[in-house]
Amino acid sequence: MPQLNENFLKLEKNYLFINIAKKVNEFSKAHPEADIIRMGIGDVTQPIAKCVVDAMKKGADEMGVKETFKGYEDSGAGYDFLKEAVSGYYKSFDVDILPEEIRINDGAKSDCGNIVDIFGNDNTVLITDPAYPVYVDTNLMSGRKVIFADSNEENGFAAMPDPNVHADLIYLCSPNNPTGSVYTKDQLKVWIDYAIKNDAIIIYDCAYEAFITEENIPRSIFAVEGARRCAIEMCSLSKTAGFTGMRCGYTVIPNELTAKASDGSEVSISALWGRRQGSKFNGVSYPVQCAAAAVFSPKGIKQTRENIAYYQQNARVIASALDEIGIKYTGGKNSPYIWFKCPNGMGSWEFFDKLLEEANVVGTPGAGFGRNGEGWFRLTAFGDSERTKEAMERFKALKL
Amino acid sequence: MPQLNENFLKLEKNYLFINIAKKVNEFSKAHPEADIIRMGIGDVTQPIAKCVVDAMKKGADEMGVKETFKGYEDSGAGYDFLKEAVSGYYKSFDVDILPEEIRINDGAKSDCGNIVDIFGNDNTVLITDPAYPVYVDTNLMSGRKVIFADSNEENGFAAMPDPNVHADLIYLCSPNNPTGSVYTKDQLKVWIDYAIKNDAIIIYDCAYEAFITEENIPRSIFAVEGARRCAIEMCSLSKTAGFTGMRCGYTVIPNELTAKASDGSEVSISALWGRRQGSKFNGVSYPVQCAAAAVFSPKGIKQTRENIAYYQQNARVIASALDEIGIKYTGGKNSPYIWFKCPNGMGSWEFFDKLLEEANVVGTPGAGFGRNGEGWFRLTAFGDSERTKEAMERFKALKL
Repeated sequence: MPQLNENFLKLEKNYLFINIAKKVNEFSKAHPEADIIRMGIGDVTQPIAKCVVDAMKKGADEMGVKETFKGYEDSGAGYDFLKEAVSGYYKSFDVDILPEEIRINDGAKSDCGNIVDIFGNDNTVLITDPAYPVYVDTNLMSGRKVIFADSNEENGFAAMPDPNVHADLIYLCSPNNPTGSVYTKDQLKVWIDYAIKNDAIIIYDCAYEAFITEENIPRSIFAVEGARRCAIEMCSLSKTAGFTGMRCGYTVIPNELTAKASDGSEVSISALWGRRQGSKFNGVSYPVQCAAAAVFSPKGIKQTRENIAYYQQNARVIASALDEIGIKYTGGKNSPYIWFKCPNGMGSWEFFDKLLEEANVVGTPGAGFGRNGEGWFRLTAFGDSERTKEAMERFKALKL
Repeated sequence: MPQLNENFLKLEKNYLFINIAKKVNEFSKAHPEADIIRMGIGDVTQPIAKCVVDAMKKGADEMGVKETFKGYEDSGAGYDFLKEAVSGYYKSFDVDILPEEIRINDGAKSDCGNIVDIFGNDNTVLITDPAYPVYVDTNLMSGRKVIFADSNEENGFAAMPDPNVHADLIYLCSPNNPTGSVYTKDQLKVWIDYAIKNDAIIIYDCAYEAFITEENIPRSIFAVEGARRCAIEMCSLSKTAGFTGMRCGYTVIPNELTAKASDGSEVSISALWGRRQGSKFNGVSYPVQCAAAAVFSPKGIKQTRENIAYYQQNARVIASALDEIGIKYTGGKNSPYIWFKCPNGMGSWEFFDKLLEEANVVGTPGAGFGRNGEGWFRLTAFGDSERTKEAMERFKALKL
């Protein structure tokens, strides 16, 4: 009889957003007349930029002609044209990353979840809390010890390391999901120094970097000194260019990043991850890679930044409504997320139900992101602008 | 310091096909004038059918319009339209699979590799040898005990179970990669009975089912009684419709497939796998799913079967050249692979070098697929027809 990985049985039965979808579907069935506005899952709503669609169609056409048909990629790590485009994008904010240090993937969630494979199960994993559930769940699936660094109202939901606590692997996300908080260069330097002192590796998720507006907030951990010795960075086109349904992201592992094996040898993290991907992944669809490369073209950057400006305007609408009611929040400035304290000391799920039932607005209960999320709530700015305004009008009309 | 998963360090440094690519690149650099014909990696060469390309472009266009834009899929398991198309395809050869039992993925290799996550590490894994390296490597990465069932000349490279040996997980592939051999219904029934007796789960890879020409060879393990109680099936559009660069496949887990947890409870394998995918995968690109669905349309089936007929003709060319020289082989009939004994008792890699150096033809050394592959060699029928003929002329001219 196959022995199961029973770590799974200790997890919440469903991934957070699947639970939310179920609740919303039930409500919707019971109230078919309700005009529900979804500001829960961090999904975008603006269409893909025209030049990106055109690039995908050109890629599809190439697949239909023998001379330009593409089969398996040799490496499965992405075509050079795309890795060079990503490298050029890093260059645009003064970060030097070689194309060979970049691996293209089908979205940050995959790499973020699968990276656990290359590490042993006796690591201490440090995750800031609240956090994107994938960091915690995928480590619990491997039976690892997970400890938390508290992000809370006192530290502006930007947890810093405790020098008395040891960690081997550290997950950081800035701009943060779910809290919208960001780390400054100086704060990231503290994390990097801590990682180097502990011989730890930081897994840095910057999926929301395109929303950064302030000068001193780095778009990449590699903008900060020392990061090349201790960090893996994961980014995605999901939020940058509306790729949630297109599926493309990238992972950066510096050539010099190594870890010691038990026999004392230095093992290249990039080589180890390449070996993993060589056996469990076969690269990203060629037309999707063509589309992704177009995102980084001058036209692509212009068109996608217009979408981001659109969402940033939504964030301002949400923030000013909360200001009006007098509700405390973080995020919205360098982030598409607004993270606020539930009114009148309500619990996260309690407020979720109230907002759904009385305003027909779906948000995400902070408690779903960890213990420090209890009593907090996340709204996303990724909606339609008219619907976002409507949602905030309904919010303001709530009897609190 | 992060502890590494040191099981990786026990593996061959590179995935087989990356090693072959390196060897070929080196040869090509040293002999830039050589006109190399590649019949090594099982990659297709015929372009994607026109109706499939058109469906992808239509999907891309939908992504560029707000009203039809698609973000995250709710489930990440595939759109209903595609799951229904796959279910309908099964129906066409009299196998009943519910759409909800199908999960769409970015290729069979991903699921085949990632499925190890849901099982514990104390399982005995039985793999027929020679085999697709992914089965072995991904289990070794988890530190599992792998045992082999020998496929060899005596049993026509179609290993059968030894009733005296116990296994918990069993990998089968028919039509087989690399040997091109196939299991009949009766043979699969023996495997199913063995699995049920051992409370084992069969992971059945039928990526090459579209090449089956004979009536009594099942296209799906679910065509055989009892399979729904003990099998997971993985298939792909890579070989069926030339999707090696498009990336789409599917995994079937019957609703009734369960395993016992240590507390005695019955755990749904489908639910467990869904939980894994919920945290580590975010679905397949929407335009790729549109393309995949078009494969199963009447026009798509007609166009893709023409490509398969083209490859089958190549297989006949390879087979008749081997007949002419008097070399023993399996496959080619229900499979795009021809698996033959290296002439004059040569070793696999020895013959690889000879074929590359003297005929400038790239094949795959059987030894790369396991111990029973030593002394054997794989050629694929996925090439261009003229080039395949040319390759076999060169083969016949070899001084053996």
